[in-house]
Amino acid sequence: MKSLQIETASLTYPIFIGEGIRKNAVELLSSLNLPMTKILLITDDEVDKHYGEELFNLLHSHWSVKKVTVPSGEQAKSIDMFMKLQTEAIQFHLDRSSCMIALGGGVIGDLAGFVAATFMRGIDYLQFPTTLLAHDSAVGGKVAINHQLGKNLVGAFHQPKAVIYDTGCLATLPDKEMRSGLAEVIKHAFIHDEAFLKDLFTIDSIVKITTEQLNDMIYKGVSIKAAIVSQDEREEGIRAYLNFGHTLGHAVEAEYGYGEMTHGDAVALGMQFALFVSEQVLNCPLDRKHIKNWLKKLGFPVKLKREVSTESLVNRMMSDKKTRGGIIQFVLLDQIGSVSLHSFKAEEIERWLNVWRMEEIE
Amino acid sequence: MKSLQIETASLTYPIFIGEGIRKNAVELLSSLNLPMTKILLITDDEVDKHYGEELFNLLHSHWSVKKVTVPSGEQAKSIDMFMKLQTEAIQFHLDRSSCMIALGGGVIGDLAGFVAATFMRGIDYLQFPTTLLAHDSAVGGKVAINHQLGKNLVGAFHQPKAVIYDTGCLATLPDKEMRSGLAEVIKHAFIHDEAFLKDLFTIDSIVKITTEQLNDMIYKGVSIKAAIVSQDEREEGIRAYLNFGHTLGHAVEAEYGYGEMTHGDAVALGMQFALFVSEQVLNCPLDRKHIKNWLKKLGFPVKLKREVSTESLVNRMMSDKKTRGGIIQFVLLDQIGSVSLHSFKAEEIERWLNVWRMEEIE
Repeated sequence: MKSLQIETASLTYPIFIGEGIRKNAVELLSSLNLPMTKILLITDDEVDKHYGEELFNLLHSHWSVKKVTVPSGEQAKSIDMFMKLQTEAIQFHLDRSSCMIALGGGVIGDLAGFVAATFMRGIDYLQFPTTLLAHDSAVGGKVAINHQLGKNLVGAFHQPKAVIYDTGCLATLPDKEMRSGLAEVIKHAFIHDEAFLKDLFTIDSIVKITTEQLNDMIYKGVSIKAAIVSQDEREEGIRAYLNFGHTLGHAVEAEYGYGEMTHGDAVALGMQFALFVSEQVLNCPLDRKHIKNWLKKLGFPVKLKREVSTESLVNRMMSDKKTRGGIIQFVLLDQIGSVSLHSFKAEEIERWLNVWRMEEIE
Repeated sequence: MKSLQIETASLTYPIFIGEGIRKNAVELLSSLNLPMTKILLITDDEVDKHYGEELFNLLHSHWSVKKVTVPSGEQAKSIDMFMKLQTEAIQFHLDRSSCMIALGGGVIGDLAGFVAATFMRGIDYLQFPTTLLAHDSAVGGKVAINHQLGKNLVGAFHQPKAVIYDTGCLATLPDKEMRSGLAEVIKHAFIHDEAFLKDLFTIDSIVKITTEQLNDMIYKGVSIKAAIVSQDEREEGIRAYLNFGHTLGHAVEAEYGYGEMTHGDAVALGMQFALFVSEQVLNCPLDRKHIKNWLKKLGFPVKLKREVSTESLVNRMMSDKKTRGGIIQFVLLDQIGSVSLHSFKAEEIERWLNVWRMEEIE
């Protein structure tokens, strides 16, 4: 088992990474010295099938626990599900010294984290991530639910007290979800670590990724994210770098309809567009053809479907949380491993998006 | 105009108090140097009739503002109204550098404050209180909405960037609301300032309170609350003292049904019970008969109505946010001006409540 200490302005907490460590839940949780008068264990019905009962039984032998499941998928990040969990917490008599545990991927972490952030104005929570994508969401304390007009628009900053990352749980992850998580790993490499990106280039198939590679990816991905978040917890500065690929990515995800395209696939498209803009604006030396072919081989989309209009994507970007005063914030690559933040008017982005969509670099 | 600086661990902000200062809104807001790319002005339909257009027009001359009104009364602190305001904020294209302004009493401050705390994970907000009760809620950064199972159960800590308290707005306040606010003023005197309490004893009618007395009450009440909150922003210690009269008060308010009894009337009952328990447990020397008669003269309730069962009140107290591990926290008076925190089992509270309800000290 490896462990990492995440430092933010408001809290320092550990991330434990290792295969099979969920079985040590009682020891790991006890070591944190939290009051835990009660525990609300929150998971989704897919994850529940594999790991729900096992973790519930472990915790139940030491603490007063209730398990609640929500439907799997992005639609669980709704205001209705948020209130349902608040009701469960009240009815199970959680108090301010109680704790919520998120067992699942990013959706469960975001949802349970936001419930914990607001239940009685904030109680402790812990994460047990079960996806590769969660290596990203489990660090940094961003929690939120979706509004029908946009993703993650209602939320808070609420750091977990610990993250217990059992990479053994990734064995049951569908390829599509593994690829979705890989996109954020690739993003972390792009913005911060050229050598790591070169390692990733050697992967040519999702199914061939080994547990050892997974452990390494998670450790490096988490480290990069933690280094950035520790300097800027509330996204007032360099934390925005993590948004590489996400300005278009979020718009694509919303425009296709949540669940139609995974977060990672949308981010993969967003990164390709960001690379294109970086080349145009900063003359960043990139072999985009090679990158595109590699992403395609891994199963990522490499172009937007025709039915989605450029105009609607730009409108989505205009209502993005990072957009201020009508100016769209865009993270561009100066070179691999180094990024900077740039501001563009909607018309500029629209023009580039049209050019990029016409481009053929197969 | 007087001003006070509120210091908390997370933020320091000013409270301006004075008659007619709402008319200087532009100068006061400009002095804060906030980005304010847009302003969402949130008020209720009663307050709107008196001050909504006036403030909107003032702000509109300098900033991009949208005014949104919600129904007046406690029922506005609902999840539906919360989401309606989130939708308004998104549709008016507020961004992270925008600001929400709460024009109204505690309900509007709590609701708008919680929307601001969670919109895009937290943006600036300002308060323009229009009630006496708001002198309490405008200090300390507690914001929340109600759950059908309890008051203020879903919320956050989010400090305003400034509070602009125009005591002239209190002229249009109904007597019932003035009395509700007076209860919190009395509470602040009880827990921290015997001389102030003696001043208050000289008031024998709500309608005879002068603007000068109001200015003084607000200044002293705010000062006491600020002194406590500055030492304990997140209610981990002495901030709990502010809960004097509230353990039973919240239960009464919920059991009667929100809106049936004002917050202040419920707190007045709660304080009388807390004085009774203080006498029993700490032998605190109190002329409860005098206090009861004074409260009665001011129009406060002095006994619980028979239909409300002691058992249901105790059950409500058991699910209070301050209750931890099944133990009810109670703030008791050691002497006037000095309080301490005590823990009781539900059965003890139930027994005292029954004795107190039987008591006749007219």
